[in-house]
Amino acid sequence: MDRYDIAIIGSGPAGLEAAINAKIRNKKTIVFGNDNLSKSLVLAPKINNYLGFFGLPGTELKNKFKEHIDKMDIAINAEKVNNIYAMGEYFSIMTSKENYEAKTVILALGMEHTKPVKGEDILLGRGVGYCATCDAPLYKEKIVAIIGYNKEAESEANYVSEIASKVYYVPMYKDEYQLNSNIELVKDSPVEIIGQNKVEKLILRSTEIATDGVFVLKDSAPPEQLVPGLEMEDKHIKVNRKMETNIQGCYAAGDCTGRPYQYMKAAGEGQVAALNAVEYLNQNRE
Amino acid sequence: MDRYDIAIIGSGPAGLEAAINAKIRNKKTIVFGNDNLSKSLVLAPKINNYLGFFGLPGTELKNKFKEHIDKMDIAINAEKVNNIYAMGEYFSIMTSKENYEAKTVILALGMEHTKPVKGEDILLGRGVGYCATCDAPLYKEKIVAIIGYNKEAESEANYVSEIASKVYYVPMYKDEYQLNSNIELVKDSPVEIIGQNKVEKLILRSTEIATDGVFVLKDSAPPEQLVPGLEMEDKHIKVNRKMETNIQGCYAAGDCTGRPYQYMKAAGEGQVAALNAVEYLNQNRE
Ligand SMILES: Cc1cc2nc3c(=O)[nH]c(=O)nc-3n(C[C@H](O)[C@H](O)[C@H](O)COP(=O)(O)OP(=O)(O)OC[C@H]3O[C@@H](n4cnc5c(N)ncnc54)[C@H](O)[C@@H]3O)c2cc1C
Ligand SMILES: Cc1cc2nc3c(=O)[nH]c(=O)nc-3n(C[C@H](O)[C@H](O)[C@H](O)COP(=O)(O)OP(=O)(O)OC[C@H]3O[C@@H](n4cnc5c(N)ncnc54)[C@H](O)[C@@H]3O)c2cc1C
Repeated sequence: MDRYDIAIIGSGPAGLEAAINAKIRNKKTIVFGNDNLSKSLVLAPKINNYLGFFGLPGTELKNKFKEHIDKMDIAINAEKVNNIYAMGEYFSIMTSKENYEAKTVILALGMEHTKPVKGEDILLGRGVGYCATCDAPLYKEKIVAIIGYNKEAESEANYVSEIASKVYYVPMYKDEYQLNSNIELVKDSPVEIIGQNKVEKLILRSTEIATDGVFVLKDSAPPEQLVPGLEMEDKHIKVNRKMETNIQGCYAAGDCTGRPYQYMKAAGEGQVAALNAVEYLNQNRE
Repeated sequence: MDRYDIAIIGSGPAGLEAAINAKIRNKKTIVFGNDNLSKSLVLAPKINNYLGFFGLPGTELKNKFKEHIDKMDIAINAEKVNNIYAMGEYFSIMTSKENYEAKTVILALGMEHTKPVKGEDILLGRGVGYCATCDAPLYKEKIVAIIGYNKEAESEANYVSEIASKVYYVPMYKDEYQLNSNIELVKDSPVEIIGQNKVEKLILRSTEIATDGVFVLKDSAPPEQLVPGLEMEDKHIKVNRKMETNIQGCYAAGDCTGRPYQYMKAAGEGQVAALNAVEYLNQNRE
């Protein structure tokens, strides 16, 4: 397997600025994210505080960023990363499609602002999960409810429906849903996940579903779920001024490291993370 | 005297990004720097790692920055700040021309990369100084040598020449020098400043000058000279992740806080400094 020098998880300003710096320093780099770069970027009506561009809509700033990485031949790997394991010499990075290896990792995940469903935290790991494709085998011949926050969740649901006996899909967005015919679409709002020792029921505003498992599929999973052992501080990844996390070779940048939630802060941190990763790689070169 | 909410010292990317964020948050702000914004910006032949602009010469990126602040009606006060004193409730900021007051200060000074002259550190405060206009009165009827690193140093020299009995001017740059006729121009390189308890001589490569004082006038004075009591760490201003220094209400951002020396890192820190200064001001509002 090809081993990358630097794997960057996230394609917002933090991830992209990390990517261009890593590339300039000749490091073999892979960027995971999505084709739209960042929802938080495209949704902004007008941006006044990114030095050099005044009054640009988010979509246009996105185009400027896209142009920049295109000119540098940096591609975005549109796969969601489900798990990252520190293996000592390297990191093992798992997406729904494939496994990757990299010597260093930069977490540029952004921040998930949606509130957890009541009971989600309590039953996490006991029927509640954040990666349907990872845990699907546990639900062979069982019932699964999937709360999907984006279109990509649909393909995870479809995959689970090949294994589970029954899949409910609760979309948190409006769209045309592309779901296997054996999936039951439930257009309702989740209120609470309940169960004694493990998930038993998903309560919605006007109905309830008896289920063995609930997957909550957002744009990004909580960082401490993504990277076991990662130290957090008040819901953010704990970093020092070098953007080092508590795990050697693992860096973080942008919204996921704390306030203020802003493009320039995110990009600046992405640069610092990348340059320190480069230094770390150069020092550890045989 | 008008008291500003935020005084920003420096007009590089760190200072400018701080300024636009302070302005957006409706804080009464003043920016000190120079009309060229930043030497480190104008001198860069080509910049590839500022996300959104690929392959731009420094002069063009400077124009983009200038456009941005112009559109937001942010002016640069082209005065060099010589001293900043923490007065408890506010800071007193002294330039060669005037005194200013501000409730908070953001140091975005950049980094002075020129090496000190041998002996400069040892005799600092005992004949060696960084602010000719501040200390000139001490040299009434005495001899002064001025090592000038930029054009602005000439007007400081002219001022001193009205007080001192003799002024030597040693320029570290090539230009047409606009000096009072009583100043002696010495085109030579400084080697060492010597003296027992106080400055006695400035040794140059091919001559030496007996003198009572030596002023070393660079683009920026060492931060701990500028702000008495400021805590440093390995030649940089010590800051935490909020860009707070050890002095309450005093923040720092950009090259002056440490490596990597880069535009994006500087701008990101400028933003964080400004937003935390805003928060501090809002909390301390009566
Ligand atoms: C409507 C709106 C307006 C805003 N306006 C402004 C403004 O005017 N000025 C300003 O400075 N800020 C503004 N912000 C805040 C700004 O959007 C964020 O601070 C910024 O986007 C953070 O950058 P980031 O790179 O840290 O994360 P993000 O931009 O959120 O990017 C993170 C990316 O990583 C991806 N990702 C996460 N987890 C994974 C995974 N496991 N696998 C693969 N990819 C993953 C996400 O899908 C996303 O694309 C606004 C935000 C919103 C929502
Ligand atoms: C030739 C060259 C090429 C470079 N190329 C790149 C590159 O490609 N990419 C990259 O990311 N970085 C590059 N850099 C580094 C980059 O220039 C710096 O990291 C960046 O300018 C730092 O920004 P700053 O705002 O911290 O400080 P500066 O840009 O240095 O700005 C500080 C400003 O504050 C002013 N100032 C200081 N003290 C005072 C005072 N007491 N009173 C009033 N004003 C004061 C200074 O005169 C200056 O204008 C380059 C640097 C050089 C010299």
